[in-house]
Amino acid sequence: MECQDYSLNRQTERENLNLNPLQRGGVLPPESRQALYEFSDGYSVCDYCAGRLDQIPKPSINSFLEDIANFIQVDHARTVHGAREGKFAVMHALCRPGDTVVMDGNAHYTSHLAAERNGLNIVEVPSSGEPEYRVDAEGYHETLDELNDRGEDVSLVLLTHVDGDYGNVTDARAVGKVAHDAGIPFLLNCAYSMGRMPIDAKGWNVDFAVGSGHKSMAASGPIGILGVQEEWADLVLKRSSLHQVKELEMLGCTSRGAPIATLMASLPHIINRVKHWDVEVEKSRYFVSEMEKISGVRQIGVRPTEHDLVRFETPFFHRIADKHPRKGFYLYEELKQRNIVGIKRGQTQWFKCSVYGYSQEQVHYIAHSFAEIADKYGEMAD
Amino acid sequence: MECQDYSLNRQTERENLNLNPLQRGGVLPPESRQALYEFSDGYSVCDYCAGRLDQIPKPSINSFLEDIANFIQVDHARTVHGAREGKFAVMHALCRPGDTVVMDGNAHYTSHLAAERNGLNIVEVPSSGEPEYRVDAEGYHETLDELNDRGEDVSLVLLTHVDGDYGNVTDARAVGKVAHDAGIPFLLNCAYSMGRMPIDAKGWNVDFAVGSGHKSMAASGPIGILGVQEEWADLVLKRSSLHQVKELEMLGCTSRGAPIATLMASLPHIINRVKHWDVEVEKSRYFVSEMEKISGVRQIGVRPTEHDLVRFETPFFHRIADKHPRKGFYLYEELKQRNIVGIKRGQTQWFKCSVYGYSQEQVHYIAHSFAEIADKYGEMAD
Repeated sequence: MECQDYSLNRQTERENLNLNPLQRGGVLPPESRQALYEFSDGYSVCDYCAGRLDQIPKPSINSFLEDIANFIQVDHARTVHGAREGKFAVMHALCRPGDTVVMDGNAHYTSHLAAERNGLNIVEVPSSGEPEYRVDAEGYHETLDELNDRGEDVSLVLLTHVDGDYGNVTDARAVGKVAHDAGIPFLLNCAYSMGRMPIDAKGWNVDFAVGSGHKSMAASGPIGILGVQEEWADLVLKRSSLHQVKELEMLGCTSRGAPIATLMASLPHIINRVKHWDVEVEKSRYFVSEMEKISGVRQIGVRPTEHDLVRFETPFFHRIADKHPRKGFYLYEELKQRNIVGIKRGQTQWFKCSVYGYSQEQVHYIAHSFAEIADKYGEMAD
Repeated sequence: MECQDYSLNRQTERENLNLNPLQRGGVLPPESRQALYEFSDGYSVCDYCAGRLDQIPKPSINSFLEDIANFIQVDHARTVHGAREGKFAVMHALCRPGDTVVMDGNAHYTSHLAAERNGLNIVEVPSSGEPEYRVDAEGYHETLDELNDRGEDVSLVLLTHVDGDYGNVTDARAVGKVAHDAGIPFLLNCAYSMGRMPIDAKGWNVDFAVGSGHKSMAASGPIGILGVQEEWADLVLKRSSLHQVKELEMLGCTSRGAPIATLMASLPHIINRVKHWDVEVEKSRYFVSEMEKISGVRQIGVRPTEHDLVRFETPFFHRIADKHPRKGFYLYEELKQRNIVGIKRGQTQWFKCSVYGYSQEQVHYIAHSFAEIADKYGEMAD
């Protein structure tokens, strides 16, 4: 049989400025590209395995997991295939079908799927809605109170530390306190925070923290981190009754290949970059302020933004699309001519973007490019 | 904080002849190293996603999955993180806790863990034991009959197509027929076969086939293939009730990163190499015949071997270890001096190895090296 052509190149995204927030935090530093070269083949990290991935001494996955546990302040760390697989594992270990999990209204779809796949009942803590979509501890308090009044047990409280729609940074510590005061374990989804900004799981009353290597930790996907506090280790890291060394929720071993090598190589880089998170936030705020100089462009979500993922309403660009001969495609095409990609083709009414990791000059260039396009077609928007 | 040194190099394994059977089938061809370069960063394959990984048009994951479904003769194919995750997903979709799954006595530990994590009861079809450890359809027939007589329902029949202890190739078609005659769905674990030898899921009565990219499909781990026949697609590929486009057992998307790019790039290479499986088997048999010229060395498992993974009993090498000043380490060290690795340090009583993918000259060199070591220390074995 003949294979079809799979278009296995990514030149456009590699060689242009990519504003897709999904892609900003996963870019590999050079040392991790080197690790990828070393560990390309198959089960590459398993040469010196004595039965447990997390205990492999060469490459030193054991030391790496100690370091990452220290970095996010948990007692135990494991790699998983991504944040979603970490959430599924925690729910699977903790909950029985029919149990209730409480999560925020900005929760990622994978939090819903992890619960649904486990047969759990989801109760949502609503956000404040337009235009801020804020999630706060008071909302969790009210929801848990209501459930308590109805006599409904809650098995797990989940909070999306930073959501993927608005880039709102929640007060994890405050929500963690509400959960703990109610005696309920607390899972923090750090997919958009771990590797970008500091995480203090112990200080924030977090029982389980999940992170995403491909989203925010400068690693090749798929890989994630599951952090577990000592109190829950026996349950979540329970061993098989048939193969005593193997952890059941990990199905024995998880990241058996290249992505874990990239995450390990990236850890020093990540530890360093989270120290400069304030600089990234400042850059984002500058970007927002420049973008909002364009007629009608407005950042929605909490303001001023506290994260690099920002969502803009852009009615001005949308009105141009009505009259432009290329319709909604003009914005994508004009940006691409300026070596900017990552805004979806055809999208003009609103978009999410991020300038994470770009230099001040690059951010200026990006904002200036949007302004230039707005100027060029401004008359069409009238 | 400072990171420890993780020893992130694999020079020894990259630059020497590696006999570890786990590592032979996962070596990347050059075109897949190129794909790894292109798709190194984070969520690299997700630039053009409209909500479903398996439908992404660029790179053409959709076309790739069509091709792989055709290659192994299933109606639907998905990538999973590995064979174990595929087995877990099938069991999770099909079975309820307390259900019974029947599997062979040579089943991989991950088949046990997938069942245990799902709360299933495992009934084993014993192998023939020493020295062949053969698993056959008659054994499945007897076990299913016994269970039927006891009135015990069986939810799934699992067969390890090629086991990882002896490299025995089972008669999947015959076991599939027994399962189907009993009206029970049939899962074939092809971790050591898919990508090495031809798979004909339809012809073999296979309802679910799982494969391992890192073990046998020339891909960077972790990645696997889950093949599902049409009859079971609604159940195993069931969509979320909350996010209609997302498949529940996949938690939405699975292989979001570099490994899938390597597997895609390797598919033409794999399709080609399975055509020459007979040459690999001949090479293995030659290797076994040369090894058995060494006093007391004997291949165990089905003879002549039908696979590249072979297990040897090596009492001769073990007796040397008793007297050698380096004890059991001498064999590893002598081999390494000859640029051969992959036999565990200290192991002399028996070992598994594979010469898959090596040239006839390399195989000759490897066998000759063992003979040379046997000669060198032969007196110590007396």
